[in-house]
Amino acid sequence: MKKILIAGAMTLLMLCPAKAQIAWQQVEPGVWKGVVGTPEEYSLLGVAGVTPQKEGFARLPEVALPELANEIVGSIQDGKTSLRIPLQRKEQLYGFGLNFQTVHQRGKILNLHVDHYGGRDNGRTHAPVPFYISSSGYGVLINSARYLTVYAGSGARKDSPNAPVAKDRNMDKTWTSAPYSDAVSILVPAPGAEIYLFAGPTPMDVIRRYNLLCGGGTLPPRWGLGFTQRTKKLYTAEDVKNEADEFEQRGFPLDFIGLEPGWQSKAYPCTFEWDATRYPDPAGFVKDMLAKGVRINLWTNPYVSPDSKIYKEMYPVSGSHTVWCGIVPDLAGEKARKIWMDKLEQEHVNIGVSGYKVDEVDGYDRYVWPDVATFPSGIAAEQMRQTYGLWVQRTTAELYKKRNQRTFGLVRASNAGATSFPYVIYNDYYSHPDFITALINSGFSGVLWTPEVRSSSSSEDWLRRFQSVVFSPMAMINAWASGTKPWTFPEVENQIKEYAMLRMQMMPYWYSEFARYHFDGIPPFRAMNLEPGFNPEQGTTAKLSDANLEDNPYLEAVSKEIKDQYMAGEYLLVAPMFKGQKERTVVLPRGDWYDFYTGKYVGNGEKITVTPGLDRIPVYVKDGAILPFMEARLHAPKAGEKVNLEIRHYGKADGAYRLYDDDGETFDYEKGAYSWRDITVTRDKKGKLKGTISKAEKGKPNSIANVTWKFMTEE
Amino acid sequence: MKKILIAGAMTLLMLCPAKAQIAWQQVEPGVWKGVVGTPEEYSLLGVAGVTPQKEGFARLPEVALPELANEIVGSIQDGKTSLRIPLQRKEQLYGFGLNFQTVHQRGKILNLHVDHYGGRDNGRTHAPVPFYISSSGYGVLINSARYLTVYAGSGARKDSPNAPVAKDRNMDKTWTSAPYSDAVSILVPAPGAEIYLFAGPTPMDVIRRYNLLCGGGTLPPRWGLGFTQRTKKLYTAEDVKNEADEFEQRGFPLDFIGLEPGWQSKAYPCTFEWDATRYPDPAGFVKDMLAKGVRINLWTNPYVSPDSKIYKEMYPVSGSHTVWCGIVPDLAGEKARKIWMDKLEQEHVNIGVSGYKVDEVDGYDRYVWPDVATFPSGIAAEQMRQTYGLWVQRTTAELYKKRNQRTFGLVRASNAGATSFPYVIYNDYYSHPDFITALINSGFSGVLWTPEVRSSSSSEDWLRRFQSVVFSPMAMINAWASGTKPWTFPEVENQIKEYAMLRMQMMPYWYSEFARYHFDGIPPFRAMNLEPGFNPEQGTTAKLSDANLEDNPYLEAVSKEIKDQYMAGEYLLVAPMFKGQKERTVVLPRGDWYDFYTGKYVGNGEKITVTPGLDRIPVYVKDGAILPFMEARLHAPKAGEKVNLEIRHYGKADGAYRLYDDDGETFDYEKGAYSWRDITVTRDKKGKLKGTISKAEKGKPNSIANVTWKFMTEE
Repeated sequence: MKKILIAGAMTLLMLCPAKAQIAWQQVEPGVWKGVVGTPEEYSLLGVAGVTPQKEGFARLPEVALPELANEIVGSIQDGKTSLRIPLQRKEQLYGFGLNFQTVHQRGKILNLHVDHYGGRDNGRTHAPVPFYISSSGYGVLINSARYLTVYAGSGARKDSPNAPVAKDRNMDKTWTSAPYSDAVSILVPAPGAEIYLFAGPTPMDVIRRYNLLCGGGTLPPRWGLGFTQRTKKLYTAEDVKNEADEFEQRGFPLDFIGLEPGWQSKAYPCTFEWDATRYPDPAGFVKDMLAKGVRINLWTNPYVSPDSKIYKEMYPVSGSHTVWCGIVPDLAGEKARKIWMDKLEQEHVNIGVSGYKVDEVDGYDRYVWPDVATFPSGIAAEQMRQTYGLWVQRTTAELYKKRNQRTFGLVRASNAGATSFPYVIYNDYYSHPDFITALINSGFSGVLWTPEVRSSSSSEDWLRRFQSVVFSPMAMINAWASGTKPWTFPEVENQIKEYAMLRMQMMPYWYSEFARYHFDGIPPFRAMNLEPGFNPEQGTTAKLSDANLEDNPYLEAVSKEIKDQYMAGEYLLVAPMFKGQKERTVVLPRGDWYDFYTGKYVGNGEKITVTPGLDRIPVYVKDGAILPFMEARLHAPKAGEKVNLEIRHYGKADGAYRLYDDDGETFDYEKGAYSWRDITVTRDKKGKLKGTISKAEKGKPNSIANVTWKFMTEE
Repeated sequence: MKKILIAGAMTLLMLCPAKAQIAWQQVEPGVWKGVVGTPEEYSLLGVAGVTPQKEGFARLPEVALPELANEIVGSIQDGKTSLRIPLQRKEQLYGFGLNFQTVHQRGKILNLHVDHYGGRDNGRTHAPVPFYISSSGYGVLINSARYLTVYAGSGARKDSPNAPVAKDRNMDKTWTSAPYSDAVSILVPAPGAEIYLFAGPTPMDVIRRYNLLCGGGTLPPRWGLGFTQRTKKLYTAEDVKNEADEFEQRGFPLDFIGLEPGWQSKAYPCTFEWDATRYPDPAGFVKDMLAKGVRINLWTNPYVSPDSKIYKEMYPVSGSHTVWCGIVPDLAGEKARKIWMDKLEQEHVNIGVSGYKVDEVDGYDRYVWPDVATFPSGIAAEQMRQTYGLWVQRTTAELYKKRNQRTFGLVRASNAGATSFPYVIYNDYYSHPDFITALINSGFSGVLWTPEVRSSSSSEDWLRRFQSVVFSPMAMINAWASGTKPWTFPEVENQIKEYAMLRMQMMPYWYSEFARYHFDGIPPFRAMNLEPGFNPEQGTTAKLSDANLEDNPYLEAVSKEIKDQYMAGEYLLVAPMFKGQKERTVVLPRGDWYDFYTGKYVGNGEKITVTPGLDRIPVYVKDGAILPFMEARLHAPKAGEKVNLEIRHYGKADGAYRLYDDDGETFDYEKGAYSWRDITVTRDKKGKLKGTISKAEKGKPNSIANVTWKFMTEE
């Protein structure tokens, strides 16, 4: 009876796709929610459990509902929800998750599906976040945990007022295989959907609103921004200790070591239990390591081995299908989450383990649960696939949160809502240029990405990749397979050490930029397109002036994308070099730019060609930039520890920077135990640059000892 | 109210996936239909409009419902239908449509989706037929026009009695990333599905039953098996006439010429109207060409240009979205079909045009209608995508059927049910080895495929590809872009001519083999795996005997596949050579095999290495084979025309062959106007081989004049 009703109703819906009215409801300043049909209860933001970072919104401009809101159309057809968001000629689109090959998304057709990245930007990726940003200054999020099909400005309706005009391919050379499309269309395979609309006015404001809605960006512990090494798969406790000692002896920084599968008694599937041969005294081992100043991060996947002590208890709350013969915890259910969380707590967290690398939650279709799998919670296999990465992040994050201890780890899958999770995405792919494009795109999707270094075919490639990773969210050598160490290529050992130490020196800057991510939603690593002075014309082959830009508003949409350079925080433009490159072009946004290493002027709003040599990754600094450096150290400062600062100023303009400070390890900052120190550089009466830093607030954490100043351009 | 009901019911279904009972109903001998849930009315076989070839079933063994029928499980979960068909260790799977890279499908994960072939066997292909055959001798068809997700022996259930055993990847070298799976799982995104089960006993019998259910194979007109050339895009009527004349003068066979977009006044989208400049007198042109013995085939796609006279009438029965600004006829509705059919009839068929090449009905997502499109018939965009190729075939086939005139053309998309359609699939891809694998796979899916020749980088490649295409359903040079002609590479012109003439000489054989496709469902081009004497162990690297095969029934499933040689009709084993190859291995099934060109013995049930030289494509012939050759001609015989036969016999065994005959042009054979002539070769009292052919039946068509005999091995 029920079935017949469904079939009948579906036929009706199919025959008469009714345009659903979208009533927009403001949920946060500049963020509106609209509903089409009957959205499913199970959603991405729901799984992520987001709590908006409300104070952050106050620092954004007041905005009204974007005009296009009334032109967004939703309908239920064929049992699915079809959404249409209008698109103007001049718009470019960014986002749609962790894409690896392009920054511009207009014209793409994507099937958003959590998966390993298969070498093509087709929507199957580790974080297929259904959120996009328009260059015109608004953003759209579809809060659905289904496989969404996105036509990002592809497909033309016959009754559109903007419909393109037919051409004859026989004789007309202007014929195109992809005629102009005036809309983004999204198919949600469910009879309803929630759609979020974000106002700007700028694209950066849109991203900030998205990130703030999702709780603000994660603020890693200070040690999370230090240097990390992942050791060989079958290393013993002794091997790991020796490796840490060698780092120390050779003078390489090291804040945490990642143990790979061999720490577990069985892996793929996992026991979550220490291997008694390789790690006879886990608690003692972790304690010894902490004493060396090196934290322990543990690899795992969530698939439970029959040999694990939790197998029996987990069995009834696991999915119908196995992964490598391990059962799949139904993390959509509280019971499975609790069993897993308790196990991790008891085996690892309680003895001092500092974090996790949660592997294989993205899945290859070939080994992960199939879409026909069922779960006791009633959540469909498809929904589970889209959200498993969120669940493992949320579950493990809560584990540390309740101890008032920050963590910072790695995960292979994520989705919308993950902004506040203390995780960085990584994968198996290994294209250095594509890793940089992914880093750029991560900033559009509220996720972090590491362009990790593994082994390399040459010392050149090794150093080039290392230079990039130093300017990324997690400075990691992932040597679980190769055993590569920072000194493996002796001919570049000094350069590696220099950059590893640079990473440490810049920690006050990185930490403050992450604080901005947390409090204001500003992604610490991001696209050039978000820079106010960025002129898309520099990316085009044609030489066009600002005047042309006004004449031709389609320019942004048609401009060549910049996908091999990015902004690292407020001030730094990073332009990585790739293996084999002797020179490269760098597009400088408008404003004066200075060389990071020398402080010399390099250009303004132009395309420059640079030949930096192997020793240098090109990095450029904004006029008036203030970069707080700390003394070179092998480990991040601990809570309460004070360090000396050298504050650098670049260029000729006055500067102002807010330096963030807290204990670096706990969540006390959420209760106000943090401070912002105002740094300013202005000219004195004689015209000489002079810096000042505000006093530490009373009763607030203060990690700064002495301050010295360095005027890079004028000294 | 309706929406709420659906949501409520769906939640219930989602939470309690109920195992649906499958009641099997025999629909034809050895073919059963089962129903899960409430299948959609719109189905592949429905769109194809299949009429089973009932007499053909009588020539197959009587069989009972396969035992596995009772183990096939269906359930409705998450609004979708999940099907599970058990799989034994020893089974290999074939089919799932036009795959290009593998013949063995076990272990694959496919999303069956009509699309251009993108270079990966992932289910997106021109004919993603949801039909597979087990080496154990049964077959399964899912009669759904949805995008199906297939796990062809991938994924393991935790409660399966055959569940694989967990291993430790740390220490166990036998660990595998894809543990054993004991089922094929298929997800149908609809709340019900029709499943067809085909009995054998052999895999070939399964295929025959499938083809017979779909009406039996197409029987092309004789001229369809002749030689065809597609001319340059902007050729004029004069150019085409000149080209036909040049073929004649140079002595190259030619039965039909294909005109590319330039014959139309506007193309991409199309008017379906002749271009008055290039073709001022279409009727006269077609008539002149027919007088030369050369038929005309017209390229088109179905997308209607605003400049076409049918645009206005078609507009209300077209889809919501355009393709290259042309409207998309809603071919699921009778009105759109009639408008299109009438147009083709009036403009082309009535003046003597012999057939079509229907392009772009597979679609690239980038230009074809998106999945959010709607159609006035109420059919979903997804269903339309899956069936558009079927609709254009059915519609145009009916056009010729009602004139009692056979056609034979090209199409870029197809699906289940297409067996009887007079169309050959082609595409843009151009890997010669993959074209051969596609030819092999076409035989598993009731479709035909041409490994067409276009331009080539070298005379070697050109000749190698030409040699292959001669042993395929359509011997075509597709020169619309390159203008290549058979004599373009003078250094191999003679060899090209020799093979072109061989194609013509073998027409009685090809025609009889296609008759077997029609009357008995036996695909004319097919995999080695269907040969009774084929021993999969020859494909393995290990040297295993028959005894091992019994000991190790999993052998078939794990054996190395043969994807570069195939059977062409009853007797011929074709082993193409690819560019750069000087030698190759050929796996000979059990039984004595002889060289096609010399009649010499080459081997029996073994792997041989051959170095045929550039002049020869390796072809081997079964012991006792009888190959009817006709005299070398430039055009296929017309209805009523008589030709001389040379009947060749190979090897030492007696032979028996049934030679098919009819008028070669009409559908009168459906009313009995055909005959089978019995050819036998036996030894006389002196032990000398002697051939006989039965008399022509009175009142039946007879196209044979004189018969001569050639004993290839014993002469």
